[in-house]
Amino acid sequence: MKSTHKRQTATLKDIAEATGYSINTVSRALRDKDDISVKTRAKIKSTALEMRHVNNMIASSLRLGYTNTIAVIISDVSNPYFAITMKEIEVCARQLGYTTFIINTNEDNDSELEAIQASLNKNVDGIILCPAQKSEKNILYLKETGVPFVLLGRRYKQIETDYVVSSDEFGGYQATSYLLDHGHKDILMLSGPTYLSSARERQDGYRRAITERNMKIKEELIWEVPVITQGFDEILERVLDRKVNFTAVFTYSDIIAWATWSYLRKKGYTIGKDFSIIGYDYIQSRLTYPFELSTIDPHKERMSKMAVEFLFKRIKGEQSESQYFTAIVETVLVEGETVQNLRNDSAG
Amino acid sequence: MKSTHKRQTATLKDIAEATGYSINTVSRALRDKDDISVKTRAKIKSTALEMRHVNNMIASSLRLGYTNTIAVIISDVSNPYFAITMKEIEVCARQLGYTTFIINTNEDNDSELEAIQASLNKNVDGIILCPAQKSEKNILYLKETGVPFVLLGRRYKQIETDYVVSSDEFGGYQATSYLLDHGHKDILMLSGPTYLSSARERQDGYRRAITERNMKIKEELIWEVPVITQGFDEILERVLDRKVNFTAVFTYSDIIAWATWSYLRKKGYTIGKDFSIIGYDYIQSRLTYPFELSTIDPHKERMSKMAVEFLFKRIKGEQSESQYFTAIVETVLVEGETVQNLRNDSAG
Repeated sequence: MKSTHKRQTATLKDIAEATGYSINTVSRALRDKDDISVKTRAKIKSTALEMRHVNNMIASSLRLGYTNTIAVIISDVSNPYFAITMKEIEVCARQLGYTTFIINTNEDNDSELEAIQASLNKNVDGIILCPAQKSEKNILYLKETGVPFVLLGRRYKQIETDYVVSSDEFGGYQATSYLLDHGHKDILMLSGPTYLSSARERQDGYRRAITERNMKIKEELIWEVPVITQGFDEILERVLDRKVNFTAVFTYSDIIAWATWSYLRKKGYTIGKDFSIIGYDYIQSRLTYPFELSTIDPHKERMSKMAVEFLFKRIKGEQSESQYFTAIVETVLVEGETVQNLRNDSAG
Repeated sequence: MKSTHKRQTATLKDIAEATGYSINTVSRALRDKDDISVKTRAKIKSTALEMRHVNNMIASSLRLGYTNTIAVIISDVSNPYFAITMKEIEVCARQLGYTTFIINTNEDNDSELEAIQASLNKNVDGIILCPAQKSEKNILYLKETGVPFVLLGRRYKQIETDYVVSSDEFGGYQATSYLLDHGHKDILMLSGPTYLSSARERQDGYRRAITERNMKIKEELIWEVPVITQGFDEILERVLDRKVNFTAVFTYSDIIAWATWSYLRKKGYTIGKDFSIIGYDYIQSRLTYPFELSTIDPHKERMSKMAVEFLFKRIKGEQSESQYFTAIVETVLVEGETVQNLRNDSAG
């Protein structure tokens, strides 16, 4: 019978505090760097052992090379958008000889920090992260650690990092323009929370499409809803209680589109007739469903592949000419069967 | 710039052969055991380094304790069934202080073997595996390694292991009985390949439900189809070309049910009217779609949790009274809107 497998681990900072050396010295000592005296190294190592600094002991043995592992930190792999992304990343990384950790954060900030720390404890060579974005702290912390990472799907205005995002503003513009071109004037926008860059930018696109046509933005038509769709019926209940008039809905994600479709159908409405819906994500690129949602294709596979490419450039120590590796992948509109052409109808 | 990150690794055996020492000596030398002379240790270590014996160097540092990692080896996380399973396992494992590797095999035997080897190279404390089952070799190999593992969703007749499966035979029986009870006599079974225990047992249940009613099994109604639904339209084309008569379809999985629904709808049929469909997996337990598939609920969450529990019992060295930890989780029928009651119709 082995001893208990759950244990506390000490960070470099803890060991620095306990020994009185700097984090840098502790780090170099644990990695057996020659510029730290043998005596100091021994002292720091013995403290590290006492403090069960096990994971970073492994780190030291790993300076021989790489751990050949990456971590993917996402909101929720049971959302098909993330599942498809995850699949693509894992397969790409494996082709490069890498094994992939998966950690779900449920869009929670604390879980995200724990996920980052867990990844560091595992001495991953790099991290692909779809950040929860509720604050900037986690990303600033991640930057400080120096571990290579790439943001996927979301980016920061104020913090420079490597990232791959879809052309969110343009995607929002495309979706809204498509509805406007089909004669819809009152378009309900079920936006994600605007602390998410993707939600903010898609909403920007929605606004641009409307104002470009010299129409007025109706703020009562813009609703920020959670990106996790549990309890979504209650939210839609509240939206519809307000008796805002709309003929079409543009949703932040396909998942929200499906939930909206489901809700409206339960209320007796037919989608593509009583109401039109356009989503974002093109989940049906990989999953066959009998009914085709009109949506925006962000090219999830391409995005995932690029994130892996960027990450491996960083891992190999390559530099970007523009300091950071960034990509905005252009979206494409996918015509499903959920948008009615009001123009044809009035002509017919 | 660091050196190339893709590398061959040498096993203890390789190093033993290269140095002329026994595997045991090599192993002890790499773990810095005092009974091996400093000179021998140095020689073995330098050979190990030359031979890039990196992974097992890490292993040696890990004799301090556990790696606190598990691997989940599944067919394809972009299938929502596996995505939901994956999410549950990762969250459960994390609560126990563990980080989770994910590896997709696409139901391929060689990929599965590579996945097992990658997991061993990472010194995972245990593996949860949904086996591809195309042969028994990989499982026999995995058993030999001694690493704790639990099979999830599929099991072997001839090989004893820990496993968690759904009551596949009963689930097949439930689905078929439900269709029979609704007046369907000719039920097309789109079965998975019967080398999968889950497919074989679900088909057994289909057969039992029919024979229990003193009806004859029509073998021409039983089709084995791939469990990955790419190119599924062609397969259905072939089934329908045979002009077999049926009013209902029981599919191996929800994914196949959605693909079948989609295909029949494209051909102009209405599901729940022209044809009835019942699936297996209850993907809609987590994902909201506007149209509800009748299906069998295998309790994916419960299955995943039990698999994690069994694995941790093994990791902690607990013994099962019956030698192996096994569970068959009882399925429940979920009434959607895809099964028409032919009895009511004929009465009406």
